[in-house]
Amino acid sequence: MLFERISILDEHFSLIREGYVGTRGDRIAYVGAERPKEDFGETYDGCGKVLLPGLVNTHCHVPMTLLRGYGEGLPLDRWLNERVFPMEDMLTGEFVYWGSLLGIAEMMASGVTSFSDMYFFCDDIIRAVREAGVSANISKGVTVFDSSSFYGSDDYGKTCALLETYAGKEDDIRIDACIHAEYTSNEQIVREVATFAQEKGLPIHLHLSETQKEHEECKQRHGGMTPAAYMDSLGVFDGPVLAAHCVWVEDADIELLAAKGASVAHCPASNLKLGSGVAPVAKMLDRGVRVTIGTDGASSNNNLNMFEELTLAALLARGTGYDPTLLPPSQLLRMATVEGALAQGRKNTGLIREGYLADLCVVDLRKPHLRPVHDVLANLTSSAQASDVCLTMARGKVVYQDGVFRTIDVERTMAMAENASEEMKRRLV
Amino acid sequence: MLFERISILDEHFSLIREGYVGTRGDRIAYVGAERPKEDFGETYDGCGKVLLPGLVNTHCHVPMTLLRGYGEGLPLDRWLNERVFPMEDMLTGEFVYWGSLLGIAEMMASGVTSFSDMYFFCDDIIRAVREAGVSANISKGVTVFDSSSFYGSDDYGKTCALLETYAGKEDDIRIDACIHAEYTSNEQIVREVATFAQEKGLPIHLHLSETQKEHEECKQRHGGMTPAAYMDSLGVFDGPVLAAHCVWVEDADIELLAAKGASVAHCPASNLKLGSGVAPVAKMLDRGVRVTIGTDGASSNNNLNMFEELTLAALLARGTGYDPTLLPPSQLLRMATVEGALAQGRKNTGLIREGYLADLCVVDLRKPHLRPVHDVLANLTSSAQASDVCLTMARGKVVYQDGVFRTIDVERTMAMAENASEEMKRRLV
Repeated sequence: MLFERISILDEHFSLIREGYVGTRGDRIAYVGAERPKEDFGETYDGCGKVLLPGLVNTHCHVPMTLLRGYGEGLPLDRWLNERVFPMEDMLTGEFVYWGSLLGIAEMMASGVTSFSDMYFFCDDIIRAVREAGVSANISKGVTVFDSSSFYGSDDYGKTCALLETYAGKEDDIRIDACIHAEYTSNEQIVREVATFAQEKGLPIHLHLSETQKEHEECKQRHGGMTPAAYMDSLGVFDGPVLAAHCVWVEDADIELLAAKGASVAHCPASNLKLGSGVAPVAKMLDRGVRVTIGTDGASSNNNLNMFEELTLAALLARGTGYDPTLLPPSQLLRMATVEGALAQGRKNTGLIREGYLADLCVVDLRKPHLRPVHDVLANLTSSAQASDVCLTMARGKVVYQDGVFRTIDVERTMAMAENASEEMKRRLV
Repeated sequence: MLFERISILDEHFSLIREGYVGTRGDRIAYVGAERPKEDFGETYDGCGKVLLPGLVNTHCHVPMTLLRGYGEGLPLDRWLNERVFPMEDMLTGEFVYWGSLLGIAEMMASGVTSFSDMYFFCDDIIRAVREAGVSANISKGVTVFDSSSFYGSDDYGKTCALLETYAGKEDDIRIDACIHAEYTSNEQIVREVATFAQEKGLPIHLHLSETQKEHEECKQRHGGMTPAAYMDSLGVFDGPVLAAHCVWVEDADIELLAAKGASVAHCPASNLKLGSGVAPVAKMLDRGVRVTIGTDGASSNNNLNMFEELTLAALLARGTGYDPTLLPPSQLLRMATVEGALAQGRKNTGLIREGYLADLCVVDLRKPHLRPVHDVLANLTSSAQASDVCLTMARGKVVYQDGVFRTIDVERTMAMAENASEEMKRRLV
């Protein structure tokens, strides 16, 4: 496909106006200000539009779309114990499949081409990912409450089975190791997962210092060690880590994250909704930590809208830092694209660069709320809505365009997900 | 028009499923669960959709859409002094007209049917409001830096002329009195505007305790009196007041606002963007203050998206109050509709009730990000985007439907607003 006369967010995150991008197979084959001599087949008129790398959502529990808005208005503990956990007990592989497909549809319509997920029924999530045609890093959520050993647990077996089936084959699916969090794992489990991940060469996806309670209780339990220090003492940071939330990290934790090259998934909407707080994003960026953007699950958000997260990340950093120069638009867009890809261990996507995967999205600027265009990047990050995405291309294939989903039957997906959530509520009673 | 088989947010802010609303002229003539016997002409299939009162944006400077994203990334003082103020000096009535029409288009497309504005070139703003067909409360921004008297100022003359031309005729346009803020007015001006407003029966629209600097410096200047106490000492609260921002109000200020029946325009995006802080909304509501929702101007936001403000208001209240039960969805929707209308002094709109003005909007729930529907009101306030509005009816007339603007030429408006902003930049050089 040839994108013609389109504004391009180039690999330096500056803008090529009225440029050309050609894709061939699953790759970007041409990027330039001039029309290429080669033929790239179908053309796409980019007039009034801007081409971005596909967005990367680095922290999600995608099947939880089934619980969107369920138990709204309850205090946190009652919401979890009376609504979320009982509903999760009703999940089946089939329900997870439909919930995942629904969440992936929402993400595709808003420009997301890859996401990192932590949940269970992973084969069913992967089935949805493959049907949709996007990419995902999948980790089997490890919460071994009733076992002292990771190797003796069901989670170990399931993670090994995922590796057996998917790892090292097609790059669309990557399998990550998982530690749910400090407060849901014992020392042996953490140490074993760290060893396992290093042996298999897997990144570890975990929740870190999400709430003040978690952070402070960890220090009490472990002789003053913060969750980051505790994880580090058990070898977790000896390989790549994707740490979600990091709301309560202290200065030494930030130095550790930077020194170890760990990635942070900043989830501003979830952190506010659940009353967790506001992560020190500007400070982490300043100290050289890779910060990326995640939505968390839809039940704690209540959507998977990366544009909303970008707007919120900018507003919170600037508002709580009393500094309107924090998180400039180009940095926000990096966080939501190439930095996210790198946090997933994907080094061939997240930039509009020849040879990279054709993971792309197009935003239509011809809307009242995106005019005038003094600053395209500011409009993208502080004025745009997810619905301004008019085309999403994942791995070289258009998966969404102008309200039409090319790879999935969205009407059926909505109906089946609705049925699944109703059936779960019926079974609960 | 008859809305058929549509979910209706009724006057108690609970939901009638598959109900009927009939409009005749500019009024709502029927609301019920049963199909009416009368004929209301054209029908609208409401399957999968929800009908809300039109949204009311209670604090805006609508022509500032022309400055959207201009000077982004500068510190506040440089942004104001090097970009905003010089550009505002380049404004003409014609530019203000196009900027207003652009902003009104953005608002209509997101369900807004009425807004309160404070700016200059008010006749040109009103021309745009009337062309679009919505309602507005207009106040001539009073910033009498160079005069000791309101009555001796140009602002007085202009406000009188507006009253002469528009007041007490068609109710679409209402004229408010204006005090820009404590730090931009002297005592005489404040006292004179208060007297003038009471004589003419006008509400006063003003900025109050927006920044800590303003709040603290006022106390220093006026023997410890906060901006609210100072305004009260000069008679401002003896009539209706619409106070924008109220970020730094103290407990006694909140009691005063409640006792005087003043209305607050909460502008969460603007308050974060400009580093002003987070207003104590939950506390104000708890003490009985009428809190409504405003976007502020697009240059300090950077959009006029009331759905984003609702999401943000909820997240900020819950996140900073560490309580997910704060600002429940029905309360948020009240703030954005009927409470806003009452803050404007409009007692015949903001509710879906027979005899009220047909100011309405329709949200299409048949989207992946709005499914499943466990809780319609939660989905509307925490999952929906402005673009989910598929129809806006103002004063009985459909002004926007499915991407089509019925009353204005949106392509021309976007082009003319773009030209205006470019021309202003050229003149600046």
